[in-house]
Amino acid sequence: MLLNSKDFLEIKQLTVPEIELILSTAESLKEISQRDIKKVPTLRGKTIINLFYEVSTRTRTSFEIAGKRMSADVVNISTNSSSVLKGEGLKDTACNLEAMKPDIIVIRHPAPGAPHMLASLLDCSVINAGDGAHEHPTQAMLDLLTIREKKGDIAGLQVAIVGDITHSRVARSNIWALTKMGAKVTVVGPKTLIPPYIEQLGVSVSYRLAEVIPKADVLMILRIQLERQHGGFFPSLREYSKLFGLNLEKLKAAKTDVLIMHPGPINRGVELDPEVADGPYSVILEQVTNGLAVRMALIYLLLGGVDI
Amino acid sequence: MLLNSKDFLEIKQLTVPEIELILSTAESLKEISQRDIKKVPTLRGKTIINLFYEVSTRTRTSFEIAGKRMSADVVNISTNSSSVLKGEGLKDTACNLEAMKPDIIVIRHPAPGAPHMLASLLDCSVINAGDGAHEHPTQAMLDLLTIREKKGDIAGLQVAIVGDITHSRVARSNIWALTKMGAKVTVVGPKTLIPPYIEQLGVSVSYRLAEVIPKADVLMILRIQLERQHGGFFPSLREYSKLFGLNLEKLKAAKTDVLIMHPGPINRGVELDPEVADGPYSVILEQVTNGLAVRMALIYLLLGGVDI
Amino acid sequence: MLLNSKDFLEIKQLTVPEIELILSTAESLKEISQRDIKKVPTLRGKTIINLFYEVSTRTRTSFEIAGKRMSADVVNISTNSSSVLKGEGLKDTACNLEAMKPDIIVIRHPAPGAPHMLASLLDCSVINAGDGAHEHPTQAMLDLLTIREKKGDIAGLQVAIVGDITHSRVARSNIWALTKMGAKVTVVGPKTLIPPYIEQLGVSVSYRLAEVIPKADVLMILRIQLERQHGGFFPSLREYSKLFGLNLEKLKAAKTDVLIMHPGPINRGVELDPEVADGPYSVILEQVTNGLAVRMALIYLLLGGVDI
Repeated sequence: MLLNSKDFLEIKQLTVPEIELILSTAESLKEISQRDIKKVPTLRGKTIINLFYEVSTRTRTSFEIAGKRMSADVVNISTNSSSVLKGEGLKDTACNLEAMKPDIIVIRHPAPGAPHMLASLLDCSVINAGDGAHEHPTQAMLDLLTIREKKGDIAGLQVAIVGDITHSRVARSNIWALTKMGAKVTVVGPKTLIPPYIEQLGVSVSYRLAEVIPKADVLMILRIQLERQHGGFFPSLREYSKLFGLNLEKLKAAKTDVLIMHPGPINRGVELDPEVADGPYSVILEQVTNGLAVRMALIYLLLGGVDI
Repeated sequence: MLLNSKDFLEIKQLTVPEIELILSTAESLKEISQRDIKKVPTLRGKTIINLFYEVSTRTRTSFEIAGKRMSADVVNISTNSSSVLKGEGLKDTACNLEAMKPDIIVIRHPAPGAPHMLASLLDCSVINAGDGAHEHPTQAMLDLLTIREKKGDIAGLQVAIVGDITHSRVARSNIWALTKMGAKVTVVGPKTLIPPYIEQLGVSVSYRLAEVIPKADVLMILRIQLERQHGGFFPSLREYSKLFGLNLEKLKAAKTDVLIMHPGPINRGVELDPEVADGPYSVILEQVTNGLAVRMALIYLLLGGVDI
Repeated sequence: MLLNSKDFLEIKQLTVPEIELILSTAESLKEISQRDIKKVPTLRGKTIINLFYEVSTRTRTSFEIAGKRMSADVVNISTNSSSVLKGEGLKDTACNLEAMKPDIIVIRHPAPGAPHMLASLLDCSVINAGDGAHEHPTQAMLDLLTIREKKGDIAGLQVAIVGDITHSRVARSNIWALTKMGAKVTVVGPKTLIPPYIEQLGVSVSYRLAEVIPKADVLMILRIQLERQHGGFFPSLREYSKLFGLNLEKLKAAKTDVLIMHPGPINRGVELDPEVADGPYSVILEQVTNGLAVRMALIYLLLGGVDI
């Protein structure tokens, strides 16, 4: 095993050499999906279980295709979290699944730390595909890969993360990932959606998007989780969009080689205008392509792959 | 590519040589499913995504088995259409899926034209597995294959399509397919369920099933979409069944080699009596078997297959 | 075919040599799941359909992994039983699926006898994965395998089955299986949950768990089907747990080599205390591992496997 852990749970734990290993492995494996025959026999006879307690077409599909292109067997389990008992329920499910001898369990769960609990219980590898508002580490890895492809080097770049920082696992994972790699990160959003003391993670804070746009090399726009906005964190979507949504007008102040990123799915016209999402600075679909490569790399490395 | 298009969207666009190519390819591939080892390596390393916005056990399973028997990787995505945003929602989903480099996206969607929108956006092939009340072209292809197997030639046959012509994508695709192949098509149903000016598609119209039965070589009975009959198109199911349902008594007037077809699932006792559905003239289960062969052929031809 | 039937429907029909063949085949195949490359090409080109009319993550996953590790193609169909028509609905679905030429249909259905109806209609093999309160024969086979692994021989063992005997398909299958193999079976539970005349199946009856524990070699604890307890079969869960739940205190009276078994999922603190479920006598997770082996064996034997 070339990673320090049998599991992939959070960016916070990773060392810079581990991040670089994952990125370079992903770069190598990305080419497989561009071949005419998009399949290698590398992981034949390995079993991957996708255990999703939250609906996610995109991430589940990405892991499923990643596994299949490496010739692993992939089994999907989608469970409505409302029908699942807390705590021991998950533990029992996990132990039962492990008794069927899978090699990797990929878990998405609304409870922060659920993947960690599984990892400590099970001998098989566990990958965190998103745990509540805690981390979404494969998203951060694909974001790093995309930035590195476009910019060559991550160190020294100015990256603005814009939106609901408090409730975003994407933001949390990216803050860890980008600062470890030497980027200068600014989080931007309404005061109600930026957690206090976040500067202690090594980031700057801004409450004005206009102030941040001119110096940013990367504008990472977060999805407004419409389904979670019951707390009255901002007056209205219209107000949010006016202050923190990105449109062509605001983008005029940006650098001419700025990258626009978004983890998807986009609320078009809310946090991102269609002209920007589909415009020349956007690398949003390349993020998805890189997501597949990063997941292939992780599966490969966790299962002990050495040379490619 | 031997078909004129990278996609398979509607019968209306197809040329007769294309239809004949698909039929002859399906005839060749059908044999695979009768082998002891029902699998060929032809499409190893290809990825097919089944993107179903309407529930369909039968059609989804048929495409899934078709792909797997050709050794493709198949990924299923079933989305409750009620939870999906219109227009851009589908577009964004499709672009995201394409970023994972599938070879074919098979789509069923309640909106007519949804597959066409995808086809124009995406580089990968798109197959229409049913779009609203517009077309269900693989159904028409399997119907042609079944008729040709039983009758030798389609040209000159008298085919009656019976039921709710207005709302049926099966009827629409079959009208195009059968008239292109030289059959004489009569649509039969209550006036409220036959669209005006349908004669312009080259079909005859009848409002009396008894008048049509004696001369028909093929009786293609449509499913009454009970879930859509909120419009009061006919007084009652009992009334419909009496006038347009097919039973043994009415069948006495038919030719002795008539074919009874139905796209399934059957409302037994409504449009078709069980004795007829399971009787000697019925080729309903052979339609299902041929559906698999037709879908194998389409996947094969769209992915550039040449010789078999 | 080495089994007497093309189907695997119920333990009641099986002969002792058939049971022993399945057990010894499972013992051989179990090793595959412990390899580094957990896959054999044996059933390449075979198609298995998992047709589940009741939700079951565990059993469906077990069959899916079993099929995939033998290189079969596995197709999952999960149907909410509430949306399915009775009788002919299932028959039509089954005939349609068979028209796609699967080799095995694995069915779970709330109606007792549903798998038998399918088996009589279809040429392909049918496996009963649980039919109402009738039988769950693969569960009994995995229980036999687990007992035999731990105890060497089943004949002569004292096995207590504890809980809701009346509504349990697990109990019914295990009574047939254990008595055929020569074990002495006692069913234990409240009078309201033990069917009259059950002694005619060759078992003893007890209404007091304390009386049974000291002599039992195996304590097979059934799940209380909380979702079915609308009939007021016992005063309260607390009362049930006090009288028939197994805890460390009660276990003090047991033999020092007693086996604790449970088909899962466990209602912790109701029929089984966590300390017992996770304790040294528990073989519950080994049951799950053996479930996979038994299902591999059945698929293998039904598809005509001879040597391994």
